[in-house]
Amino acid sequence: MIEGVAVKELKALTDDRGFLMEILRADEPIFERFGQVYVTGCRKGVVKGWHYHKEQTDHFICLLGRALVVLYDPREGSTTKGKVEEYYLESPPGAAARPPILLKIPPYVYHGFTASGCEEARIINVPTIPYRHDRPDEYRHPWNSEEIPYRWPADVTRGG
Amino acid sequence: MIEGVAVKELKALTDDRGFLMEILRADEPIFERFGQVYVTGCRKGVVKGWHYHKEQTDHFICLLGRALVVLYDPREGSTTKGKVEEYYLESPPGAAARPPILLKIPPYVYHGFTASGCEEARIINVPTIPYRHDRPDEYRHPWNSEEIPYRWPADVTRGG
Repeated sequence: MIEGVAVKELKALTDDRGFLMEILRADEPIFERFGQVYVTGCRKGVVKGWHYHKEQTDHFICLLGRALVVLYDPREGSTTKGKVEEYYLESPPGAAARPPILLKIPPYVYHGFTASGCEEARIINVPTIPYRHDRPDEYRHPWNSEEIPYRWPADVTRGG
Repeated sequence: MIEGVAVKELKALTDDRGFLMEILRADEPIFERFGQVYVTGCRKGVVKGWHYHKEQTDHFICLLGRALVVLYDPREGSTTKGKVEEYYLESPPGAAARPPILLKIPPYVYHGFTASGCEEARIINVPTIPYRHDRPDEYRHPWNSEEIPYRWPADVTRGG
C-alpha cells in the first residue's frame, strides 16, 4: 500500500427501517483533525482529477453509487514512489464481501476518481483543513497526463 | 424558530461533470466541535425518532432523496417550549428555490425524520460528540407518542 495511505472498513447496521453507518470518529486512531465536510458528485465518463495537496489529508467515503479512486505516489524518498493503486469504494449498505471503506489519502499523493458502473458516484470528503477559497491547497494535473502511469477505463473521456 | 436551532443554506456548485457542495467547516460560526460523521438511511413509511440528546448537538444534512425532519421543544425555560417545527431537507444539487440546508439541533430538543416523497432519505449527521456504544447519549420516545403534539404524514406506519 502507498506510504501514508490507510483504509478503514466500514460497517452498515441494517434493519427493515434502513441502515446506520459510522464513518469517522474523533476518538479513533485514523483521525487527525477536522477541517470540513464536503460532498462531491461525479458523473459516469468523467474523471475528477488528478489533484494533490501539500498540507491536507483527505478521507474519502462513497455514499451513492460506486467510485473508482486511483492514487499515484510521486514522492521522492517514499518507499512506494511510482506506485499506482486502484480502490473501489462501495456505498452503503454494501455487501459483506465488498464493504464500504474510508480511504485516507496523504499530502502529495495524486488522486482522481470516477463513477464505476453507475450514473453518478457521490463522495463525502472529510479533509484535515478547510478549503481556502483565496489560496487553495489544491494542485492539478491533466486527467490523462502521460506523466502518470495509469490509463482510466475506456468509458472515461474527459476530466479536470 | 426553536431556541438553539440554526439553519445554514448550502450551495451546490454544478457543472457538466457533477457538483461540489461544502457542508460544514471548522472555521465558520455554526461549527462548535467535531465528534464524528455518520450516515443514516430511512425508508419510506418509517420514522427514525423520537430521539433526543443531553450533551450532543446534531447537524443534519440530506444527501439522497428528501427528508422530513420534525423538531419538538419540551424544555422548561425555553422561550419556544412546546413548539413543533417541520423542516424539509433537500439533497444536492437541489433547486434554487429549495436549496439543501444544514439543520443544527441542540441538546434536549426531540427530533425524528422520515423519507418524504422518495423511497429512501439518506442523512449525514455531524454530531459534536462521538457515539458512546457503552453509554449512549441518546434518549428515545415512541414515534407516535401522544405526549408530542405532532402527527406524522399518513403514509408513515411505524418508527423507532
